[in-house]
Amino acid sequence: MSSIRIESDAFGEIEVPSDKYWGAQSQRSLGNFEIGDIKMPASIVKSFGILKKAAAIVNEELGALDPKLAAAIKEAATEVAEGKLLEHFPLVIFQTGSGTQSNMNANEVISNRAIEILGGVKGSKKPVHPNDHVNMSQSSNDTFPTVMHIAAVTEISNALLPNLRDLRDALQKKSEEFSKIIKIGRTHLQDATPLTLGQEFSGYVQQLTFGIERVEQSLPRLSLLAQGGTAVGTGLNTRKNFDVKVAEEVSNLTGLPFKTAPNKFEALAAHDAIVEASGALNTLAVSLFKIANDIRYLGSGPRCGYGELSLPENEPGSSIMPGKVNPTQNEALTMVCAQVMGNHTTITFSGASGQFELNVFKPVMAYNLLSSIRLLGDAARSFRLHCVEGIIANEAKIDKLLNESLMLVTALNPKIGYDNASKVAKNAHKKGLTLKESCLELNMLTEEEFDQWVRPENMLGPK
Amino acid sequence: MSSIRIESDAFGEIEVPSDKYWGAQSQRSLGNFEIGDIKMPASIVKSFGILKKAAAIVNEELGALDPKLAAAIKEAATEVAEGKLLEHFPLVIFQTGSGTQSNMNANEVISNRAIEILGGVKGSKKPVHPNDHVNMSQSSNDTFPTVMHIAAVTEISNALLPNLRDLRDALQKKSEEFSKIIKIGRTHLQDATPLTLGQEFSGYVQQLTFGIERVEQSLPRLSLLAQGGTAVGTGLNTRKNFDVKVAEEVSNLTGLPFKTAPNKFEALAAHDAIVEASGALNTLAVSLFKIANDIRYLGSGPRCGYGELSLPENEPGSSIMPGKVNPTQNEALTMVCAQVMGNHTTITFSGASGQFELNVFKPVMAYNLLSSIRLLGDAARSFRLHCVEGIIANEAKIDKLLNESLMLVTALNPKIGYDNASKVAKNAHKKGLTLKESCLELNMLTEEEFDQWVRPENMLGPK
Amino acid sequence: MSSIRIESDAFGEIEVPSDKYWGAQSQRSLGNFEIGDIKMPASIVKSFGILKKAAAIVNEELGALDPKLAAAIKEAATEVAEGKLLEHFPLVIFQTGSGTQSNMNANEVISNRAIEILGGVKGSKKPVHPNDHVNMSQSSNDTFPTVMHIAAVTEISNALLPNLRDLRDALQKKSEEFSKIIKIGRTHLQDATPLTLGQEFSGYVQQLTFGIERVEQSLPRLSLLAQGGTAVGTGLNTRKNFDVKVAEEVSNLTGLPFKTAPNKFEALAAHDAIVEASGALNTLAVSLFKIANDIRYLGSGPRCGYGELSLPENEPGSSIMPGKVNPTQNEALTMVCAQVMGNHTTITFSGASGQFELNVFKPVMAYNLLSSIRLLGDAARSFRLHCVEGIIANEAKIDKLLNESLMLVTALNPKIGYDNASKVAKNAHKKGLTLKESCLELNMLTEEEFDQWVRPENMLGPK
Amino acid sequence: MSSIRIESDAFGEIEVPSDKYWGAQSQRSLGNFEIGDIKMPASIVKSFGILKKAAAIVNEELGALDPKLAAAIKEAATEVAEGKLLEHFPLVIFQTGSGTQSNMNANEVISNRAIEILGGVKGSKKPVHPNDHVNMSQSSNDTFPTVMHIAAVTEISNALLPNLRDLRDALQKKSEEFSKIIKIGRTHLQDATPLTLGQEFSGYVQQLTFGIERVEQSLPRLSLLAQGGTAVGTGLNTRKNFDVKVAEEVSNLTGLPFKTAPNKFEALAAHDAIVEASGALNTLAVSLFKIANDIRYLGSGPRCGYGELSLPENEPGSSIMPGKVNPTQNEALTMVCAQVMGNHTTITFSGASGQFELNVFKPVMAYNLLSSIRLLGDAARSFRLHCVEGIIANEAKIDKLLNESLMLVTALNPKIGYDNASKVAKNAHKKGLTLKESCLELNMLTEEEFDQWVRPENMLGPK
Repeated sequence: MSSIRIESDAFGEIEVPSDKYWGAQSQRSLGNFEIGDIKMPASIVKSFGILKKAAAIVNEELGALDPKLAAAIKEAATEVAEGKLLEHFPLVIFQTGSGTQSNMNANEVISNRAIEILGGVKGSKKPVHPNDHVNMSQSSNDTFPTVMHIAAVTEISNALLPNLRDLRDALQKKSEEFSKIIKIGRTHLQDATPLTLGQEFSGYVQQLTFGIERVEQSLPRLSLLAQGGTAVGTGLNTRKNFDVKVAEEVSNLTGLPFKTAPNKFEALAAHDAIVEASGALNTLAVSLFKIANDIRYLGSGPRCGYGELSLPENEPGSSIMPGKVNPTQNEALTMVCAQVMGNHTTITFSGASGQFELNVFKPVMAYNLLSSIRLLGDAARSFRLHCVEGIIANEAKIDKLLNESLMLVTALNPKIGYDNASKVAKNAHKKGLTLKESCLELNMLTEEEFDQWVRPENMLGPK
Repeated sequence: MSSIRIESDAFGEIEVPSDKYWGAQSQRSLGNFEIGDIKMPASIVKSFGILKKAAAIVNEELGALDPKLAAAIKEAATEVAEGKLLEHFPLVIFQTGSGTQSNMNANEVISNRAIEILGGVKGSKKPVHPNDHVNMSQSSNDTFPTVMHIAAVTEISNALLPNLRDLRDALQKKSEEFSKIIKIGRTHLQDATPLTLGQEFSGYVQQLTFGIERVEQSLPRLSLLAQGGTAVGTGLNTRKNFDVKVAEEVSNLTGLPFKTAPNKFEALAAHDAIVEASGALNTLAVSLFKIANDIRYLGSGPRCGYGELSLPENEPGSSIMPGKVNPTQNEALTMVCAQVMGNHTTITFSGASGQFELNVFKPVMAYNLLSSIRLLGDAARSFRLHCVEGIIANEAKIDKLLNESLMLVTALNPKIGYDNASKVAKNAHKKGLTLKESCLELNMLTEEEFDQWVRPENMLGPK
Repeated sequence: MSSIRIESDAFGEIEVPSDKYWGAQSQRSLGNFEIGDIKMPASIVKSFGILKKAAAIVNEELGALDPKLAAAIKEAATEVAEGKLLEHFPLVIFQTGSGTQSNMNANEVISNRAIEILGGVKGSKKPVHPNDHVNMSQSSNDTFPTVMHIAAVTEISNALLPNLRDLRDALQKKSEEFSKIIKIGRTHLQDATPLTLGQEFSGYVQQLTFGIERVEQSLPRLSLLAQGGTAVGTGLNTRKNFDVKVAEEVSNLTGLPFKTAPNKFEALAAHDAIVEASGALNTLAVSLFKIANDIRYLGSGPRCGYGELSLPENEPGSSIMPGKVNPTQNEALTMVCAQVMGNHTTITFSGASGQFELNVFKPVMAYNLLSSIRLLGDAARSFRLHCVEGIIANEAKIDKLLNESLMLVTALNPKIGYDNASKVAKNAHKKGLTLKESCLELNMLTEEEFDQWVRPENMLGPK
Repeated sequence: MSSIRIESDAFGEIEVPSDKYWGAQSQRSLGNFEIGDIKMPASIVKSFGILKKAAAIVNEELGALDPKLAAAIKEAATEVAEGKLLEHFPLVIFQTGSGTQSNMNANEVISNRAIEILGGVKGSKKPVHPNDHVNMSQSSNDTFPTVMHIAAVTEISNALLPNLRDLRDALQKKSEEFSKIIKIGRTHLQDATPLTLGQEFSGYVQQLTFGIERVEQSLPRLSLLAQGGTAVGTGLNTRKNFDVKVAEEVSNLTGLPFKTAPNKFEALAAHDAIVEASGALNTLAVSLFKIANDIRYLGSGPRCGYGELSLPENEPGSSIMPGKVNPTQNEALTMVCAQVMGNHTTITFSGASGQFELNVFKPVMAYNLLSSIRLLGDAARSFRLHCVEGIIANEAKIDKLLNESLMLVTALNPKIGYDNASKVAKNAHKKGLTLKESCLELNMLTEEEFDQWVRPENMLGPK
């Protein structure tokens, strides 16, 4: 029957679906690793397309690869880079720890597609051999860490950072919009001295400004490519400058500033740059968790919570409680943060577990980092669109709470001392008085003094 | 055009693909939560089928639900339970933290399918209303934790535990096969006193025996169902015994011993049973990591490593180094272990973050727990089939190492004392002597005494 | 000068402070491991006293140890067990990963003290040798995991569990005290259907009841002792039944049900029982975090928060805001929970990192587990004494919030359907009406029907 | 009796040991927080001395504080900064989450000591009041995060970084020393192509070079001080520029480049800079774990392991196996790494748990960060001194393994193709031949060709 063809590798022959470009080693992996259903991320597959194309360009330039073969490889690799052949990459992430099988998947798909372009027979390995030509001057041990870095830098630069900047700007806009609304502060969850709602939001803006810096700061080391180290980092079977030139080509193809890694032994055996980048995302998750949590508490109610903010109503909130609306965007975002923290644990443990010349936790590290990048970017966008931009301040409620508070007494410290101010507050709390009533009852101040000194609008900054 | 129909909810009308059973709330979720691409696991969807069927049975029995409607709901729910309608469950896990939208997805699919069965018009909510009939006596707040538990217990019982037992048995078989092979022990990675290879493997068997116990031990609390708590745990809008009867029906439908939770407030607001189960899986991951790691080190080589074991050769190991074979199953398994540990962090953090009457990290907790269960089960099976069962002991190498070792000197402690034995070993190490040579050189023993006392086969247990 | 004496080991002579019982190997460790200042926990030292005493008893009984020496060792070991010689145990936890140096510290202190008792010269190793007599039939590799288990089981049984039970009982008492107070429920932080404050607290009680079960359930495996495995698990240099008898003696000395481990290879090379116990504590930390967090939010205010509870005022809360009182016990407890979760990560990673016949992360695992046990026990006690027992319900505030809520509308689902009930709630929310006003305005019900059907006291359970 | 004096605060009078400088609030904390025994780190206490001195200088300069009082406060604060009064700081870290009690401890000790200097009566609060003078223009909410940053930056700059640089340099020296030693590479733990031992160590050097950069990179944000935010971030009760001037004074006193935080709301409510710094330390732990692990495996033996390196022998390794020497420094270091990873989890979870204007996990975050800094610095130093500097290459063993390996076949890829090279290697492995023998047997090459092409010294880099 025509639906099957025969491919072969060092282990012998094996049947492959005839409409797929993959070959023997990919097929073998399908049988040997029936573990979960998480496929190698599309961004990794596309990065293989970019890398294999760059390698073909450089191999041709260095005189190692026949121009005719190079042309076919470049064409096939471009299709992979553009995501046109994703269905031919069926492997899961829980496979060999070097990602060898996904590198071979790329080699097989590109060689078979290139063979097809050149009019040859799929599976014949002629005239384009997956190892000798597509993988020329390469090893899984340097290609896989290279595509990990290409994919991560690309996703961070093109998806995560723009979404973070948009969220930061949306919060900044809210901070400005709320700059005149004075509200009660809360420390230890207890009523404290006042601030403006704009000031409160400015803290969130600052968290994101720093968060963006942290992610950007991880890029220089994440932009170093292992390519050129081949099997153990020495660069055996490459020509001089292959590493530098490949990094240049990858930069050309992506428009991003990749460089060759200064030490290939480190680049194969350790993935500290992945751990570092995950650390930056972990910090970002910490920031976003706090922001999302604050906002949902400030929006709690509508009648029995803090009720200072109204969040957008996007969908019915309950299958049993009619009319209920919930802070669902905050929930999705905080769940994403929890996921990112867990991914960080996986990455940390995996990163520490390299052995000698190779770390064999590459696919799980790549998957978790790319998952964190994707989720944070998507969630930042969703949270901005469906929550932040629509937040409304409930000024009446904010004002009511401010006026009931006792902690405005802090303004009296420089006037009557901490100990006396403390008596005023405690007396008011005990008897249910306002601050002014308590002050007058205890003969601490005249009414005029109180009105002059205890003014929330004067408590928003240094004197 | 016929490819769209109109569905509605409290927020108004919305267009839905006409060939899908989902309704307005599912559709709204698709637009509001474009966050990642991890879909609600199939085991959750199927568990919704089981639960909605059980609820319909009990509602009918209690006289709350019209038998004609109940029949249609049961038929539709059965299809969901059997996984026939998975394409109608398009929602991702990063949605509302209560899983409300997936509960509504189930309600909408079942009501529309039931309407169809009864000859009605999809989207009309007549005669089967998604909230009033399919969700009768229920809330997302109790259905979602219920399906979390149903799915987890089912997957653990039917997939994880059998695979763990098979792996344990395969290791036990190897332990028996290797019971006569005496080898050098290693502590601190340094040569130590001897043991049999069978004894070494018996440690792995014991780890798995305990690991299975640990997982089993988490089942009683994981088998408690929140159903009947409705919105906040009180059971408002249910009839007496609804909770007990639903648990009984779920047990009937699954063949597993579910019970109603003794306290529904805990069951909605805390998911400690999920954290506990994840803790058991985390311990299992710790065990499997150690086992897989030992075995790959013992198999390291073929010529420059420990080389005591030969692991099965399943595929070419390298895209650059011809003839290389790698311990890829061990790599896949240890990567799975790292993933499980990270999932545990996510679950821990999420579990701690419940608020008042509800924990709103339900979907992320469910996903991570089910992921850990699936991955450990699959990896245990793959590791058994493709590694453990094919392990061969390299007896020649094992024997050679044993005979070169210096730590057999320990047997002399009771004869010549620790301090003298220490001198013998250090002298041998320094001068490159065998133990016997060193003993004789230092006049500690006669040759006969040495041969009598230093016998590996007598060093394998107490006297 | 008399303040120094000379001790020796296989590495030669070394000066030791003459007023200390420790010997050469302890002294060497002090010089080689100047890493942090966390000392080996007192409970480990005391457990060494118990174990060395038990070993001496059994060695004497088996005829291996001279009764005179045994008597002196038992006397010295008893002093260690009673904590009288803690100053002679100066080593830090970041030392050799087998805890060998702490085992030798115990051997040296006990032998020197026994020598002293017998009138000998400290440092002479006569007539009591640290290795040959105090460490007889033992190895660090089995003693250290044994004292880890003795210490953990003892601390859990005698300190942690009683404190947990007391806290559970205190919460139970509050649950009963609050059984008639009806309050608004909160899901997604949004107003939901009502429950009693007693019901809310009953969820906390249930969490602790299960938490206690979880900790208890980890004890059987934690009560298995490695003693008798000696260097690699085979029991070389022990006599038959030494392991069983030592476990019996330890049980006698502690009053706790210890047993010898069924497989000593597992007991030396894996510390899964520690990981498991830490998992139970991690789940407990998750529970306590939720409880402490809820209670501080319910007590937030005094005027601008939820304000449903008043927590005891234990100290001035602010160095700048006079009269401020903060939920400091909740803060201490939640910080403890965060510490326990981090300790769990350390333990997990360490537990997975055993190699061949030995796990060499023993001291760090012991320290982190004992730290978690101690902190949770202390914090549970402190939280009970200084917070829970003094909690007061602010009934006026609770009542006010309940009456303002809109979610009582849920009671109307069975009367007017979910869709109509939804309209009532949304109309009330939009126009600032009460539920009843909204119902009447929309002609959904008569006033009598409303008053009959919407009664919080009827919304607390199934019908 | 004279051993007690009476101190007071807003809660009334309380007895304090008369020989201690602390006051009422410290004493109250001792009673209320009997939780564990981990005291506030000395570096925090000293940083309080620095900060209180800086604040007094600025308050005097701004005309807010009487010069005579300022002088006494500065003198007392200097003593605290120099660590002379550590015994007067008895509080544990599990206290109020804002660190208020430790701030008050500092205020009380400094005021009482200043009173003493000025000839007053301890406990009289005259003429130096703990709140009104020592805490002038300050709140716990800004002082505690300020001392967290001062302590962390100081410890990183003065202890951690120098130790890391020394370790990096020691590894670099070894890399150079080993630059001519060709050895077998290992990937997937399996024999791979050769590299020099110097190249292998160069990977470790690169890891540390990057690790140092990562830590340095976290300093700019860690050097931003919250001081000046007072209670909620607004700076209420400070004078203009107080914040900038205090940061300048702290820089003067420490010689380190501190700056005032650009947004005080972020600085009080979020501790993302702590999470970030912990992330850098986590990455460092990952690197050190890999390095220590590799080195101990390479040193495994002496006769039955890899045996390529000899590590220094620092102490007897076993209480039962005479003459055994273990890689104990590697064990201590890897245990430290596991602790740092756990500390990072605690810090992550704590950092995410801020609420509104304050994060109340300050002490636990400070403790864990300072613990990680201290442990990594100490362990790096210990590992360098007691391990790295004494490592010796076992050239004979290294050479023997290299010559036995089959992976030199990789050099033949460009000559005979991957598929043929694969046949050569597999044939050699199967029949126990050398590579050359296999090549000749299969007629792949002449002996001359083999000798010319397969030369390890030509396999160490690109062509």
